[in-house]
Amino acid sequence: MQRSQLVDAYPATSQVRARAFDHWIAARLQKMIEPAAVRVELWDGSSPYSGTRAPIGSVLVHDRGALIGLLLDPDLRFGEAYMSGRLEIRGDLATVVEALTRITLGAPSWRERLRGTLDRPNSLRSARRNVHHHYDLGNAFYQQWLDADLVYTCAYFERLDMTLEAAQQAKFDLVCRKLRLQPGESVVEAGCGWGTLALHMVRHYGVRVKAFNISREQLSYARERARREGLADRVEFIDDDYRNVTGDCDAFVSVGMLEHVGKAHYSSLAEVLRRVVRRSAGRGLLHFIGRDSARPLNAWTKRRIFPGGYAPTLAEVASDVITPAGMSIVDVENLRPHYARTIAHWRERFKNVEEKVSEQYGEDFRRAWELYLAGSQASFSTGWMQLFQIVFVPLETAPPYWTRAEMYERPPCAVATR
Amino acid sequence: MQRSQLVDAYPATSQVRARAFDHWIAARLQKMIEPAAVRVELWDGSSPYSGTRAPIGSVLVHDRGALIGLLLDPDLRFGEAYMSGRLEIRGDLATVVEALTRITLGAPSWRERLRGTLDRPNSLRSARRNVHHHYDLGNAFYQQWLDADLVYTCAYFERLDMTLEAAQQAKFDLVCRKLRLQPGESVVEAGCGWGTLALHMVRHYGVRVKAFNISREQLSYARERARREGLADRVEFIDDDYRNVTGDCDAFVSVGMLEHVGKAHYSSLAEVLRRVVRRSAGRGLLHFIGRDSARPLNAWTKRRIFPGGYAPTLAEVASDVITPAGMSIVDVENLRPHYARTIAHWRERFKNVEEKVSEQYGEDFRRAWELYLAGSQASFSTGWMQLFQIVFVPLETAPPYWTRAEMYERPPCAVATR
Repeated sequence: MQRSQLVDAYPATSQVRARAFDHWIAARLQKMIEPAAVRVELWDGSSPYSGTRAPIGSVLVHDRGALIGLLLDPDLRFGEAYMSGRLEIRGDLATVVEALTRITLGAPSWRERLRGTLDRPNSLRSARRNVHHHYDLGNAFYQQWLDADLVYTCAYFERLDMTLEAAQQAKFDLVCRKLRLQPGESVVEAGCGWGTLALHMVRHYGVRVKAFNISREQLSYARERARREGLADRVEFIDDDYRNVTGDCDAFVSVGMLEHVGKAHYSSLAEVLRRVVRRSAGRGLLHFIGRDSARPLNAWTKRRIFPGGYAPTLAEVASDVITPAGMSIVDVENLRPHYARTIAHWRERFKNVEEKVSEQYGEDFRRAWELYLAGSQASFSTGWMQLFQIVFVPLETAPPYWTRAEMYERPPCAVATR
Repeated sequence: MQRSQLVDAYPATSQVRARAFDHWIAARLQKMIEPAAVRVELWDGSSPYSGTRAPIGSVLVHDRGALIGLLLDPDLRFGEAYMSGRLEIRGDLATVVEALTRITLGAPSWRERLRGTLDRPNSLRSARRNVHHHYDLGNAFYQQWLDADLVYTCAYFERLDMTLEAAQQAKFDLVCRKLRLQPGESVVEAGCGWGTLALHMVRHYGVRVKAFNISREQLSYARERARREGLADRVEFIDDDYRNVTGDCDAFVSVGMLEHVGKAHYSSLAEVLRRVVRRSAGRGLLHFIGRDSARPLNAWTKRRIFPGGYAPTLAEVASDVITPAGMSIVDVENLRPHYARTIAHWRERFKNVEEKVSEQYGEDFRRAWELYLAGSQASFSTGWMQLFQIVFVPLETAPPYWTRAEMYERPPCAVATR
C-alpha cells in the first residue's frame, strides 16, 4: 500500500542512523506497549524488541520528531504521525491497532484526564461547525463505502450471514420494535443522518416523523429521497438543533447523536425529553457510543474526526439525561460486537475505494480514515468502547411491552408493514 | 377488619372532639396530599376535605399524637401509626396507598435527604443482624403466603395467566438464559434465600453452585431440601457473607441481595466480582430493587422491615459496582410491572392468613406487613421503585449471546432440562 511512496517522502531522516537518544526513546516506547507484542522499529531498521513471542506486527517510525511525539503524547501523536505517513504499521493494521487498544484498557493517563477537564461545550454554533466537519464531507464520500441507504451507525446482525444492508434494516426494525411504534403515532427523531430511519419508520410502521439535523448536505439528500419515494407528506426534515425541538410526540428516537452532544449539554437534552415525550404512554430510545469508565474521546479522533464528541458512560446518561428528564430506564442493550462487525464491513468497502479517496481528498485524509476505521473496530472488539441502546419511559408510565419476548417473537424485519 | 377493636383501643381520644389546632393540622395534611384525592378524617368524623372529586378513600386519624406525627415526619409516622392502629385507611388500602405514593414521586424532602446522610454502613456483624431481622422471622411465616418454593423476589410473568409458582420458575429460567449457563459450569450465588434458584440451576442447567447466605434459618432449610432432592453433591450452601466468597466461577448471580448491601459496601462487592468472575468468558447477573433518583429507603420501611436496606439507581450500580469491578454492562431489563403483579399475588395470599399471622405475631406485626406489602406494590406500580436485572461481563469479554433473541427463541421454561 504505497509504502515506497511514503518512505520516499522522508528521505532526509529515513537514511539517517538512529542515535543513542533515539534508541532510548524507542526502548521506552517498546516497554510501554510490551503486552501488545508489537515491535517498535526505527527508520534505520533497528528495534529494541526483545519479546519472547514473535511480534504480531511493527510500528515503523520514520523520523525523530514522530518518535518524540509518541513518547510525549501518544494519544494524539500516533494518529498524527500515521496520517502524515511519518509512522507506518507493518502487519495487519486492524490486528496491530487492536493489540495496542487492549493495553489502554486500564486507567486513563494524567494527560487524558487533563484533556477531559479542558473540554469545551458545543454551543449551537460550534455544534453546527463540528457536525459540518464530519458529516458535510460530501455525500459522495460516504456513498463510496457505506451501504446503499447511507446508514452511518451500528448495524444489527440479526443473523450472522446477513449483508450490511440487511443488518441496517434489522437495526431499524429492532429500534421500532423496542419503541413498539403504532400506526398513526408521532415520532421525533433527533439527528437523523441521511434520513433512512425516518423513512423506514414512516413506510413500515405508519407513523409521522419530525426529523432534526444540522447537517445541510444530509438534510437535502433526505428531503429529496422522501419526495422521490412519495413519503414527503408524512416526514418533515427540519434544519435545526435538537435543542429547538418543539411539540410533543409518542416516541422520541435518536440514533448516533448523543456522542456529538457533549456532557455539558446533557441537561438541555433532558429538558427536550421532558418537554417533548408525552407523559402518557410516551417513550424514547437513545442509541449511542458509550464507555464503561468516564474518559474523554481519544485526542486524535477528537481533533481529526469528531470535534466536540464525547462517548458517555451508562451512569452519566442515566443520571444526567434520563433521571433529570423525569424518565425511567426500562431496557438497555449493549451491541458492541455488532458495531465491530459493522465497521469490519465498512473497512472492506473502504479498502476497495481507497485509491479514489486518496485522489479526491488527499493521502493524509485517506490514511486518517483508514486509521479511524481500524481504531474504531478495535475499540468495539476489545471493549474499549460500548454501543448502548436504551429505552426509557416517563417515570409513571409502564414499559411499552410486558415482556421483551414480544420484540423477538414476530418474524424479523418489516414486521409492521401489513 | 377489626375496626371496632382498634377504635376501642383509643377511647380517650376517639371520643374527644377535635379542637381548632387539630383542624389546622388536618387542613395542612389535606393540602399536602391534595392531588391524591384522599380524605383526611379526624377521630370525631370531621374532615377538611373539600375536593371537587369524590375521594377514593380516607385516612382516619384516631388521636392527636398520631396527627402531629403525620405533620412532622410523615415518612416514618404514617407507617408507625398504621401499624399501631392509631391511623386507619378507609377504602381499598392498595388504591389509597398507591395514590399517596404518586404524590411523593417528586423531589425528596429535606428530611429524606438528611436521613440519607445519616445512613450507617452494614458491617459484617450488622449485616447479619439486619438480615436476621427480616429473614429469620421464621420460615413458617413466609411459608404461609409465599409460593410453595419460598421465592421472595420479583417473579417473571412470561404469560399473563401464569400462576405465581410458574412465574417464579420463569424468572429462574430467564436468569439462567441471560447467563447462558452451560452444563458443568461453576456458579457463585450471593444471597441465596431458601436456595430455590441454586437448586433450579443445578437441576435444570447442570451447573455446580456455591450459594452464600447469612440467614441461618434459610440455609438449614436449603440444605435439607438439597439433601431430600438428591442434589447435595452439586450445591454447597455456605453460611458466610458475600464479602468472603472465595474461588472463581463462570457465572456470578445475585437475586435480591444488593438491596441489603448498602451503598458504603459497593466497593467490597466490586472487589468480590473482580476476584470471583473469570476474566475469560465469565459473566454475572444482579437482580435488585432500584430507583430512578438516588434517595434513601422510606424511613418506616427501613425501621420496621429492612434495616440497612438501600435501593440504588442504575447509575450508582454502574459506576460504583460494575465499572470498579472491571466489568461492562451488556443488558439491563426493568421488570417493575412484574414486581407489582408478584406482590399483588403475595397480598392475596397474605389476606387469607392474616388472622393466623395476627394471632401468632401480634396485630401490630400483621398491620406492619399489610402496609409494607401494599406500599411495595404501589411503589412498583407507580414507578417509585424499579426492579433491575443487569448482566455484565469482564471488560474484554463479549456478551454471552450474539442477539437477545436467543434468550426468547427457545420454548419457555425449563429449556435446558433435556
